[in-house]
Amino acid sequence: MKIADLKTPAFLIDLPRLKANVQGMQERAQKNNVALRPHVKTHKTAEIARMQITADAPGITVSTLAEAQFYQKSGFEDITYAFPIAAGKLPEAAELSANLKVFNILLDQPQTLSAVAAYGREHGVRFKVFLKVDCGYRRAGVDPSKPESVRLARQLAAADHIEFKGILTHAGHSYHSRNADEIVAVARQERDVMAQFAGRLREAGVICETVSVGSTPTAMHAPDWQGVTEIRPGNYAFFDKVQTDIGSCNLQDVAATVLTTVVAHYPAHNQMLLDAGALALSKDSGADHLSNGIVFGAVVNHPHLKIFSISQEHGLITADAPIAFTDFPVGSQLQIIPNHSCLTAALFPKYHVVEENQVVDEWTPVRGW
Amino acid sequence: MKIADLKTPAFLIDLPRLKANVQGMQERAQKNNVALRPHVKTHKTAEIARMQITADAPGITVSTLAEAQFYQKSGFEDITYAFPIAAGKLPEAAELSANLKVFNILLDQPQTLSAVAAYGREHGVRFKVFLKVDCGYRRAGVDPSKPESVRLARQLAAADHIEFKGILTHAGHSYHSRNADEIVAVARQERDVMAQFAGRLREAGVICETVSVGSTPTAMHAPDWQGVTEIRPGNYAFFDKVQTDIGSCNLQDVAATVLTTVVAHYPAHNQMLLDAGALALSKDSGADHLSNGIVFGAVVNHPHLKIFSISQEHGLITADAPIAFTDFPVGSQLQIIPNHSCLTAALFPKYHVVEENQVVDEWTPVRGW
Repeated sequence: MKIADLKTPAFLIDLPRLKANVQGMQERAQKNNVALRPHVKTHKTAEIARMQITADAPGITVSTLAEAQFYQKSGFEDITYAFPIAAGKLPEAAELSANLKVFNILLDQPQTLSAVAAYGREHGVRFKVFLKVDCGYRRAGVDPSKPESVRLARQLAAADHIEFKGILTHAGHSYHSRNADEIVAVARQERDVMAQFAGRLREAGVICETVSVGSTPTAMHAPDWQGVTEIRPGNYAFFDKVQTDIGSCNLQDVAATVLTTVVAHYPAHNQMLLDAGALALSKDSGADHLSNGIVFGAVVNHPHLKIFSISQEHGLITADAPIAFTDFPVGSQLQIIPNHSCLTAALFPKYHVVEENQVVDEWTPVRGW
Repeated sequence: MKIADLKTPAFLIDLPRLKANVQGMQERAQKNNVALRPHVKTHKTAEIARMQITADAPGITVSTLAEAQFYQKSGFEDITYAFPIAAGKLPEAAELSANLKVFNILLDQPQTLSAVAAYGREHGVRFKVFLKVDCGYRRAGVDPSKPESVRLARQLAAADHIEFKGILTHAGHSYHSRNADEIVAVARQERDVMAQFAGRLREAGVICETVSVGSTPTAMHAPDWQGVTEIRPGNYAFFDKVQTDIGSCNLQDVAATVLTTVVAHYPAHNQMLLDAGALALSKDSGADHLSNGIVFGAVVNHPHLKIFSISQEHGLITADAPIAFTDFPVGSQLQIIPNHSCLTAALFPKYHVVEENQVVDEWTPVRGW
């Protein structure tokens, strides 16, 4: 089947670019002597995760228990669930701990530590637990400068029914960068905060087997990972418009696009209608700290076209100059690079894998929680 | 099962409110002597669509061919596919035309008319076709003030293999309103533009069997529907924060919420972490023409709490005053009224139907295209 024969909207994965992205990150990790534990929430497929892991680094990172269960059933054996565990999710976490060689959870609240320890005691489970650390993003994690954070790590290390695995952070503020230099600065901060906190814990008698960092921008630009043992980037498999805008990658690295059809021309408004709307692109507004106006993706090969408005199934394109409508006949196809490939991929029940103009495979991701 | 026992995030539908919303719109339509053809893209379930239709008004509106196919298999017999047809979708449209009592498509481009007529001639199909009209929203549809729009209607009415059904519009600009008075003004415009265009077509010898309008805000506030025969609101089944913000409904009418768990407290930042992020709430930024700052939904019973930031699985709450953290223990649940219930519902593989604190049913929507 050819791309031109696909029903639109469709989610396309460019296989050669995907493979290059996957290999590039493996090489960065190997060269820098850190374990790569890819975050698979970007694609949520078994096929891509299998490409991402290696015999030396068999672990993956997931964002939901549904993903953990799906990957366990797909034969993966080493999974970190990188969202602070809630007490209500401990029964499922216990089952995953029993069914996997390694199932790591994480927490940053004393109350959650008590709940995990109590559940472990009651049900005879020994949970593998990371302490989540805030390296500057201010989303989740303990403040590594505070004595109570060292205390919480010491309690984790001392708790029965808990195997303390180490410390873990996500430098999500790397997405607020405006260029590669700013990303490098965040990567240094992520590395230094974690290495220093691991040092303070060591002084307090707490050994961090794993010091885990990760975000695609910092993973692409970190000068080195001194004091870090593991990285967990995810978006790099696909990349997207945000990553190119902030200087994380080049536009030609992006492996995921949304295929859409031009459905109508409105020359009086200098507009074209697409059959890709908010349910095909997501309403992620992109790197709006950089933008001169919000657009919902980039049109491949036509950078002057702006997707300025989307509703559920409608996407509207305009341009600063009059559109050459004859270049985009009604019924013709366009490819859109999404602002945020993770959120866009999550809207599609299946992905079409393509090489040049051919559809070579179809992959089905896991959904839900 | 109780709500408190549900795994979060979960999508809750309050059954009594849903029923009241459905009945309220049926009463408005009956009182005003227009057919109600609900747009089911908001929920995409057979269960709610069955509540919405009546013996007198058995028709529904869909936004994708996947919905049309799902509802056909679920026993519905009268469906309007309310997105401009693309030539590449005609084989599926022809199959639906054969399998349904009524399957209406719509178009606004001369090229598409030619493609529909040619396909019909070649395959012996007689398509039922609406002319899509722009009543001021500037998203899709012909300009009713232009002679070429009358000409297109005349060509539709004269075409072999086409049964001209009438004219159809969507006053989506009602969502830019700031209060009920502004919605009334848009409703009058929507009604008048369509009634007048139908009159001009009549003078040109083209009879519109159906004059179809629709948007939840205008359907809630239209003073009357003189000259209109059909309305197609959809969001009213659930409503949402945007509808309450623009004056379309009251907060206590909203029938859909996202159930989430408080996962962590960060008093130093006056923040709480939720397990509902962009994949549970959608990144729809709401009625931002009204907003004093974007929030991603309203916390039920706690209007002072602001969901100010969401990433894939993380939601962050803050407040202007210090949060009383003891009121929201780690592990406790909150319900969030989504900004845009259509986009939020579309993220969930299933819905939980609730009455007071009990989960009374589970419904599965259709997905994809």
